[in-house]
Amino acid sequence: MCQLFALESNAPTAATFSLAGFAARGGDTAAHVDGWGVAFHEASGCRVFVDAGRASDSPLAEFLCRHPIRARRIVAHIRKATQGPVGLTNCHPFRRDGWGRSWTFCHNGDLKGFQPRLTGPFVPMGQTDSERAFCWLMQELHAALGSGAIPDWGVVAPLLAERAGYIARHGEFNFLLCDGEALYAHASTRLHWLQRHHPFGRVRLVDRDMEIDLALANGADDRMVLVATEPLTHGEAWTAFEPGELRVFSEGRVRWKSDSLVAA
Amino acid sequence: MCQLFALESNAPTAATFSLAGFAARGGDTAAHVDGWGVAFHEASGCRVFVDAGRASDSPLAEFLCRHPIRARRIVAHIRKATQGPVGLTNCHPFRRDGWGRSWTFCHNGDLKGFQPRLTGPFVPMGQTDSERAFCWLMQELHAALGSGAIPDWGVVAPLLAERAGYIARHGEFNFLLCDGEALYAHASTRLHWLQRHHPFGRVRLVDRDMEIDLALANGADDRMVLVATEPLTHGEAWTAFEPGELRVFSEGRVRWKSDSLVAA
Repeated sequence: MCQLFALESNAPTAATFSLAGFAARGGDTAAHVDGWGVAFHEASGCRVFVDAGRASDSPLAEFLCRHPIRARRIVAHIRKATQGPVGLTNCHPFRRDGWGRSWTFCHNGDLKGFQPRLTGPFVPMGQTDSERAFCWLMQELHAALGSGAIPDWGVVAPLLAERAGYIARHGEFNFLLCDGEALYAHASTRLHWLQRHHPFGRVRLVDRDMEIDLALANGADDRMVLVATEPLTHGEAWTAFEPGELRVFSEGRVRWKSDSLVAA
Repeated sequence: MCQLFALESNAPTAATFSLAGFAARGGDTAAHVDGWGVAFHEASGCRVFVDAGRASDSPLAEFLCRHPIRARRIVAHIRKATQGPVGLTNCHPFRRDGWGRSWTFCHNGDLKGFQPRLTGPFVPMGQTDSERAFCWLMQELHAALGSGAIPDWGVVAPLLAERAGYIARHGEFNFLLCDGEALYAHASTRLHWLQRHHPFGRVRLVDRDMEIDLALANGADDRMVLVATEPLTHGEAWTAFEPGELRVFSEGRVRWKSDSLVAA
């Protein structure tokens, strides 16, 4: 099993503190030692960093903590291999191009016997069930929405929820999908989320002996959502996703939840 | 104008020495200050690192020199913007997926009025003539070769040479294209290449006061090709491409040259 993390905010944010706690799960506080990756959806483009080793003592992970990249959407993953050998092509986040944008995808779970027919441009490079599921979702979205105008989350969300439900019949399917504008999060078994906004207080990491005052790094207008397999901090009200729930986050708030539009 | 660099070898190689000299051109010995990038085609997958600032004093570039990534194919670029603003989406190498592999592309030159019709999955994310040319080349290769089996360089090379000649009517079109197995290099005006093999000797960088003995890092069976806009070292026999020439390198040697197969 793997660990998922995402940040979605209304202003560029350095997730250094959260990533430090998250990276500890890659070999230190949890045995997810088969690779890690993080995607930064910045204003001027998307960057994905992956490594096939332990996150907890990775020079690249340490570099990213020392040289924070500020982004409005960050998606990260720590791998404990179930399907597919250890290697770069099997590290999440996976990335594919769609509608002139980078889409990134991370999965926690294990899908049994999910071998969809992939006939278009979205084919796996590695051997994981996760990348196969991502390719099929991208194929389905293109089949339903065409390749023309960039679809917005209001159109993507219900389609995605339906297709995610179909895949989840094959096993655990907790995932994060980001198109650079919106973050889609789906839980079949385990996923938590949290909104942060003014007034910001002190929080303490679950996985490291670190504490910060969020008020020092955030202003009155800053608003963000964090999503993680298990809560990353003490002293904050993390909420568990319901089984089968898909949520869309954008601008640091919930915009959509399976079958019901949430007031913005 | 930009600067190109590639390494293609028969064994995983850390191009640290060459990259140090090359990075100096990004703001130090040459004024290419609008971004840089490097793609490592490793055995287990492809990683692309890009940054929108100067390469000569970039923490990420310095990190990559201190923590060498060993790869058989490395493609790098330093940008001096001609078309498209400074930003991550306009940094080379660009990456696209084709036939279950990552393809990377860098361009030096300036194409005037090249606005091809892009109807398939290959559409630009940024605003450069370079990414447009790459997308069109990928579209043309897919149109000619289908999406089934992975095409080998013997099939790709003549098609690419013909399409490259067509694009070059629009302006300078020096480029590097790598599919993870072969390196395709095309010159319309300026590009140099060099083969290194046993016995290895001492070489000195053009752009930095650095010298190394290649015999210390390479064995009798190691063989590699370097390609660069301008020669990177003193004391080695760099050869200029002829105008309009496309060469294919693989396993550290020339495998194909416009219109003529070179004996392996």
